[in-house]
Amino acid sequence: MAYELYYWPGLQGRGEFVRLALEEAGADYIDVARGSGAGRGVAAMMKVLKSNSEPHIPFAPPFLRDGDLIIAQVANILMYLAPKLGLAPKPAALRPIANGLQLTVTDIVAEVHDTHHPLSTNLYYEDQKDAAKARAADFLGHRLPKFMGYFERVLQQNPKGDKHAVGASLTAVDLSLFQLIEGLSYAFPRAMKSFVAHYPALAALREAVRTRPRIALYLASERRIPFNESGVFRHYPELDQDAR
Amino acid sequence: MAYELYYWPGLQGRGEFVRLALEEAGADYIDVARGSGAGRGVAAMMKVLKSNSEPHIPFAPPFLRDGDLIIAQVANILMYLAPKLGLAPKPAALRPIANGLQLTVTDIVAEVHDTHHPLSTNLYYEDQKDAAKARAADFLGHRLPKFMGYFERVLQQNPKGDKHAVGASLTAVDLSLFQLIEGLSYAFPRAMKSFVAHYPALAALREAVRTRPRIALYLASERRIPFNESGVFRHYPELDQDAR
Repeated sequence: MAYELYYWPGLQGRGEFVRLALEEAGADYIDVARGSGAGRGVAAMMKVLKSNSEPHIPFAPPFLRDGDLIIAQVANILMYLAPKLGLAPKPAALRPIANGLQLTVTDIVAEVHDTHHPLSTNLYYEDQKDAAKARAADFLGHRLPKFMGYFERVLQQNPKGDKHAVGASLTAVDLSLFQLIEGLSYAFPRAMKSFVAHYPALAALREAVRTRPRIALYLASERRIPFNESGVFRHYPELDQDAR
Repeated sequence: MAYELYYWPGLQGRGEFVRLALEEAGADYIDVARGSGAGRGVAAMMKVLKSNSEPHIPFAPPFLRDGDLIIAQVANILMYLAPKLGLAPKPAALRPIANGLQLTVTDIVAEVHDTHHPLSTNLYYEDQKDAAKARAADFLGHRLPKFMGYFERVLQQNPKGDKHAVGASLTAVDLSLFQLIEGLSYAFPRAMKSFVAHYPALAALREAVRTRPRIALYLASERRIPFNESGVFRHYPELDQDAR
């Protein structure tokens, strides 16, 4: 039976980290809220979120339905899916390492979101632009180099080589790092200008993922929603600046 | 061999969610950075964080060392520890449900942190107080009721009864919900004034955890650091306001 992914249509957002794993594995899945007809569309997603009868309800999208099980939170979905999709580290003892890295991706993604919405998700960006400028300056000046320096070290210190974040083969973490770097490059092209020079192993990983046959096909397909200013990674030139 | 917990001394912070699980289980553990002497103290923690030879480095505290394995991120540490401590849901098929809930606790904790540091963790609170007021108002007005309403529903809809977040027995998620409510009550007493009336199952869970024998002993001990304005949950009266 096909996996059912539930996420807002029209933006990559946090759902994209799950899509990339499903696409890389060639898994059979339905992007429920992007569909139409019975049991599809945003209404079908809201029905689960507001259900009074589901035994285990999610707080927010994305969530995944696999038969009777509803699984929430990106890192949790990936921890559940990765072994089934051949994207978990081998040996299994390294799975907590992968999950720790995935949660650190979750952390930086939340910080990226807050560069354009530092005060409230209920206000428009335009109504919190001054605070956004301060938060984005701090993010690009301090947090981005700290996270990128960390992930570069993770690759460099991987005992199995710097081609992968954990272990000797491709995992969902590698796919997520690709998406993170793509998103950062879209949102902050000026800050990311010297990225390749400063973070060579991360830059090589990004290219290796981008050119994998199924990922390349996916990126060229209509299933890949373009980056836009509804997603987590938004390009507001006034928030961008030089960074290490 | 004792578990080694690494976290900043002098504050409960994110380390406290791990401490509560270790304490409830009566597990043998060392709170490394709070100790002194060889292999103890903040220097011992920094040594791991800055290591160029560890195969799997954490981004930030808290992290746990169990033999050769270093595990980072609260939810990940709890997912690793819970089965060993008898704090994972039974049956094991419910573990992704517990992990999804734990990650939702992680999310609200990050939002609580940002009520006093909305612009930068590198600036003092006093230097971002206006933004903090706006963020805290949004948090108490919108986000807190949304999260609390969600967790209350989780308890109410648990097919095994409203005494636990998942399954029929105590899990690390229940302990974390206790800590979350304790912290919110310390930081925002005005906002939490009508908490018991609005969220009866959560309020009952809080009392049930607080009076568990080992937890009660721990809370009365010197191992329990008092809440203070260095932690995630800070009481700044100017940020507090009525809330649902």
